[in-house]
Amino acid sequence: MNRFLTLLAGALCSAAMAAGPGQYVDPFIGTSNFGATHPGAQYPHGLASVSPFNVAFGQPELNPFEKDDAWNSRVYIHENQFLTGFSHLNLSGVGCPEAGVMLLMPTRGELNLNPEEYGSTYSGERASPGYYSARLDKYDIQAEVTSTLRTGLSRFTFPAGQSHILLNLGLGLTNETGGSLEIVSEREIQGMRNIGTFCYHSENVRPVYFVARFSRAADDFGAWKKMPRYRNVEADWVGFNDKIKPYAGYRHPLSGDDIGAWFSFDTQKDEQIQVQLGISFTSIENARANLNAEQRGFDFASVRQSAVDAWDMLLGRAEIEGTRQQKTMFYTALYHSLLHPNIIQDVNGDYPLMGQHGTGNTKENRYSVYSLWDTHRNVHPLLSLLYPDIQTQMVRSAVAMAKESGWLPKWELYGMETQVMVGDPGTAMIADSYLRGIRDFDVDAAYEAMLRAASQTENNLLRPEIEEYLNLGYVPVDDEGPYDGSVATSLEYYVADYNIAQLAKALGKEEDYQTFSRRANNYRKLYDPATGMLRPKNRNGQWLSPFDPELGRNFEPAPGYIEGNAWNYRFYVPHDTPGLIQLSGGDEAFVEQLDATFDTGNFDMTNEPDITYPFLYNFVEGQAWRTTQRVHQLIDQYFGTGPDGLPGNDDTGTLSAWLAFSMMGLYPVTPGNTDYALFTPLLDSVTLHLNTQYYPGSRLVINKADTGSTEQHSDISFNERKLMRPFLDHKALVKGGEITFK
Amino acid sequence: MNRFLTLLAGALCSAAMAAGPGQYVDPFIGTSNFGATHPGAQYPHGLASVSPFNVAFGQPELNPFEKDDAWNSRVYIHENQFLTGFSHLNLSGVGCPEAGVMLLMPTRGELNLNPEEYGSTYSGERASPGYYSARLDKYDIQAEVTSTLRTGLSRFTFPAGQSHILLNLGLGLTNETGGSLEIVSEREIQGMRNIGTFCYHSENVRPVYFVARFSRAADDFGAWKKMPRYRNVEADWVGFNDKIKPYAGYRHPLSGDDIGAWFSFDTQKDEQIQVQLGISFTSIENARANLNAEQRGFDFASVRQSAVDAWDMLLGRAEIEGTRQQKTMFYTALYHSLLHPNIIQDVNGDYPLMGQHGTGNTKENRYSVYSLWDTHRNVHPLLSLLYPDIQTQMVRSAVAMAKESGWLPKWELYGMETQVMVGDPGTAMIADSYLRGIRDFDVDAAYEAMLRAASQTENNLLRPEIEEYLNLGYVPVDDEGPYDGSVATSLEYYVADYNIAQLAKALGKEEDYQTFSRRANNYRKLYDPATGMLRPKNRNGQWLSPFDPELGRNFEPAPGYIEGNAWNYRFYVPHDTPGLIQLSGGDEAFVEQLDATFDTGNFDMTNEPDITYPFLYNFVEGQAWRTTQRVHQLIDQYFGTGPDGLPGNDDTGTLSAWLAFSMMGLYPVTPGNTDYALFTPLLDSVTLHLNTQYYPGSRLVINKADTGSTEQHSDISFNERKLMRPFLDHKALVKGGEITFK
Repeated sequence: MNRFLTLLAGALCSAAMAAGPGQYVDPFIGTSNFGATHPGAQYPHGLASVSPFNVAFGQPELNPFEKDDAWNSRVYIHENQFLTGFSHLNLSGVGCPEAGVMLLMPTRGELNLNPEEYGSTYSGERASPGYYSARLDKYDIQAEVTSTLRTGLSRFTFPAGQSHILLNLGLGLTNETGGSLEIVSEREIQGMRNIGTFCYHSENVRPVYFVARFSRAADDFGAWKKMPRYRNVEADWVGFNDKIKPYAGYRHPLSGDDIGAWFSFDTQKDEQIQVQLGISFTSIENARANLNAEQRGFDFASVRQSAVDAWDMLLGRAEIEGTRQQKTMFYTALYHSLLHPNIIQDVNGDYPLMGQHGTGNTKENRYSVYSLWDTHRNVHPLLSLLYPDIQTQMVRSAVAMAKESGWLPKWELYGMETQVMVGDPGTAMIADSYLRGIRDFDVDAAYEAMLRAASQTENNLLRPEIEEYLNLGYVPVDDEGPYDGSVATSLEYYVADYNIAQLAKALGKEEDYQTFSRRANNYRKLYDPATGMLRPKNRNGQWLSPFDPELGRNFEPAPGYIEGNAWNYRFYVPHDTPGLIQLSGGDEAFVEQLDATFDTGNFDMTNEPDITYPFLYNFVEGQAWRTTQRVHQLIDQYFGTGPDGLPGNDDTGTLSAWLAFSMMGLYPVTPGNTDYALFTPLLDSVTLHLNTQYYPGSRLVINKADTGSTEQHSDISFNERKLMRPFLDHKALVKGGEITFK
Repeated sequence: MNRFLTLLAGALCSAAMAAGPGQYVDPFIGTSNFGATHPGAQYPHGLASVSPFNVAFGQPELNPFEKDDAWNSRVYIHENQFLTGFSHLNLSGVGCPEAGVMLLMPTRGELNLNPEEYGSTYSGERASPGYYSARLDKYDIQAEVTSTLRTGLSRFTFPAGQSHILLNLGLGLTNETGGSLEIVSEREIQGMRNIGTFCYHSENVRPVYFVARFSRAADDFGAWKKMPRYRNVEADWVGFNDKIKPYAGYRHPLSGDDIGAWFSFDTQKDEQIQVQLGISFTSIENARANLNAEQRGFDFASVRQSAVDAWDMLLGRAEIEGTRQQKTMFYTALYHSLLHPNIIQDVNGDYPLMGQHGTGNTKENRYSVYSLWDTHRNVHPLLSLLYPDIQTQMVRSAVAMAKESGWLPKWELYGMETQVMVGDPGTAMIADSYLRGIRDFDVDAAYEAMLRAASQTENNLLRPEIEEYLNLGYVPVDDEGPYDGSVATSLEYYVADYNIAQLAKALGKEEDYQTFSRRANNYRKLYDPATGMLRPKNRNGQWLSPFDPELGRNFEPAPGYIEGNAWNYRFYVPHDTPGLIQLSGGDEAFVEQLDATFDTGNFDMTNEPDITYPFLYNFVEGQAWRTTQRVHQLIDQYFGTGPDGLPGNDDTGTLSAWLAFSMMGLYPVTPGNTDYALFTPLLDSVTLHLNTQYYPGSRLVINKADTGSTEQHSDISFNERKLMRPFLDHKALVKGGEITFK
């Protein structure tokens, strides 16, 4: 087949595959503007993914954003042009550098093992669920990748001549170093890569294991290691001082900070060589078992089709009507909400135990990568609504983590609690799920873990400030480090305590309900009537002074607040918005303050504390139309279909889940409260296919009259009964039926 | 027990153990003056050894000889004072940096993971076969080490307080980097270390595996890694930029260039903690099996006693009379001759296949570390005489290597042919052994391997210059690199060919005998009557000009010669000394030239090509007394009982074997010729207990009349029959009896 035919066949093939809603997904959305998504091939909730890696070297001409030149958490940046391989373990929408390892790179000509030199520009990029391809300009190689849950598959189409496939274990996004590899045969490499040092913390390091298998035996192979800078006379004698040293034909285990392996092939014109790479977090043997189980032979089309089918099945739970652009935005948002948490167990059920050395075994899915400070707000409610079966497994995994480590997850990464961000969001995630009807988990164990975090005053992994919080009713700003955020922490604790209270109530634990409701109500202690802000307070009860509510707007440290300023947090009492309205001076004052937040540029669409603010108008009678207005305006302003179609870091799907909910016209404003705020959907109509094993209804339809103007949909009905408030309870909604906006 | 009692008990214990000839061994001999021996604990032909490692950091005040400041092949140098641990894989008397890895170091106080800082001076060193001890001044820790064949055992006596035992996998003598480790439990660490890059060659790298086990569970533990120098903004964020990063409590596999692990203990006063470390060249599992098989419990005294017994048994095959100093010199020489080659197979028989990936299995000993350019001259003849059972196994191992790789060993290191030095000494080693009566090996396979090296003109691993050697009768100096040594190479080939001829004759292969005898006789083509030297010759038959026979004396490159100059090589035709005497102008001229060599300072006692020269006087009638004179003078001048008791690199026992033979009054001058040159022994009497399974005699006695002057022993008798020549054939000698010098 000549190249034209190859490309044509690829295009036809691609077209044939994209019959379902996956056809609307554009994986490039979020790959610019710090969205931190990757455009690579990934199965829904897949452990493995295969992403182009273009953040190393090549600056400033080719890669304006180099991974080490700034705090960078992205394996791929759309503005960059210099590709140094395809990484097989990637995070999507995460704010800290991690993973981006096990890089496969096809090259040609004289063997060059230096990624700074062997990298290439590329052209003709295409990406769709489970598929990415590009042509590597320097080598005239067509690269295509796809993936299963735990494995990647790369297909490289080479010109005639000397071709190579490099597996680089040194280069990566992670700041951790080190790996080992062993060339098992002319067709297989196995090994491990240390990852970790998440958010530049030194703790939380572990290995990820892999087995790479080639569709053809290599004609030549070898390993390499970047040698250190030697000293003195030794430096004169060693042949590879501060250089990359090749180990031709090497077959023993090789370890080092920066190692790799090459496989060389004398290729015919248009010869395709495929590489499977299976990963595991427990052992090399399991990586091989995963590979053997998930890929038979080297069948690129079949692997890709499986991924497409898996995506269509999940995305198809939401049927929508709207413009093509709206479909792209919506389905890509849903797609981005379905990447993390991802499974981590091997095909045989082995998984890394939480917070300890060793391996557990499970017969169900074990999920990992919980960015709960972000995702408890809307990703998990979205899953609870559309995929309660998956959310059940995620809750079960979180509870299992508590059983293993003593603590629910906060920012769990591959079995490690990274303790990134503040609060106790796992409590909220689980209580909220329970209240929405997700109940097939060990509720007693979950509740016990919640109480531990809420009460243990020493060595509290999740709530380190618990003792003063209990004594004072808030976390004091005294002794606070630049990133502690005493107000932010307190507010998260209030939400968590509210969730415990709600769960306690549902479980008939009246005393706990009272206790934790009281604790949740302590937010009032931080309300400063003078400024209208939730203001940092000292241990002695005095407000922090001086106090600038705008401080923190540009990410400078702001005492009391983490990732934001006082404005971003001023309405962050989701469990008692009516109470806050009262404190603020009543409805009119509250609306004024809300408006002021938006109008003064103190609303941040790219971060989580304030993302419910546009929906808060619903709490004021007669003002719900402002919600619709705000939401539509924010979508218009911040979201789109290009690589910059997300306003900032997707936070493992949180911005995307915000968009998906917002386009449908409903939003879960309060964790632990099952009311959705309702507002005019952007989409013409939505049909959600509910899981009848969990919910009585089989489908929920959301429709709006075609008025041409959004503000006029003040009349909302559910199953033809007009709603008195612009809210609908999850428990009612999942009985199925139709929400209509007139 | 207080410290005084501890020391006293140690001293008593030590005294009690040293009843046999091992009591005379001083392992410090050769640890200065570039002898390159180590004073550590090593079992006879043991794979593992535990040696103090004092060649890193601390310069210039504490360590005048730092490993990277010069070409250094020593793990321990007597002049140095800064110890950074105890290494568990060590070479003795080798000229290139290698091994010296898996360093255990006890420390105290605040945990410090930087060897440059945690190293200590030491005092009160003691060493004897299978034992080394010293007090670490900085920590007031008593360190004692002993070993079995494949394991080390360290016993550290701590003061009360916070104590640590560090296992450093980064530091080492080898120039290769990289390792992996895993803390298996509070009492065990496993892993591997890449070694290789022998003589600064980039090839020949492999892992050595280990399991370290502690006598007590650690109270705290962790791993560490020296992190790289990060770049740009990344460098601002990572916590351990170009620093050692600790991983407290880490239990997963960790890999990197420079890693280690610490175990911490809250120790009582005088608490002893022991560490076993088993090694293997095939796998971690086998390292553990070796450890389990060779050490039961933590019984330091018993392990040490086993080593003492093993040494006494071997050393006791030679009983001698002489001064205490002579006994020290002789038994230490014998000791140094019994370290390499060392066994390499695991207790289950697994061993690394030669020159290829993979593992073989054997039911006998598999030897490794063959520095044959050195040792074929006298170490193997010494083994053939005193330990024919061991030499049999060494020959069998060498032949097995040929079966596995196609080639006999030359400089074989841990299953890798390093190709260091020139010639084909494996051929000579095996033929010589056969002729001495070592015949229980696959002679056909050995012979076939010899012929391959002697005839294969392409890709000849052992004789790369074979084609021109065959065509011209010598290796031409044209195109020679600075370290090729065309004359040296030719001379080694002649010796090898002579050995093939002698073996062929013994095997009844008359035609081969003729062919290879002719080839061996080609040395005459390099004899230059004008200078009396074996002189570099060009391809066209012209001598190299200009030509300075002294060039190379100071290790500068000398065309034609490797590790020496023309003088060092001028008599290196051991297989035809009579022919050389003729060429040189007859007996008188030859003696004059020999004398001139010594008198002009052109004899090098520290290197191999000329070490037989003092014995060549025996070839001239009536001049044998000069041999005695020279030998005694050389011993007196170059050998002794202090750390500088060897004149230079021991070359895996070659200088020591020279001394042992020389002190006994006999020397095997020619590989492949079973005559020993006889001369007056330095020792008063020698009784060798022969192995009657190999030799008809049960013992050989060497006696000399007490004359007070060596020159007068011109009357040599064997079994009371006066010898007409100052030579005695091995075949006669091993019938047993008595050699008397009157």
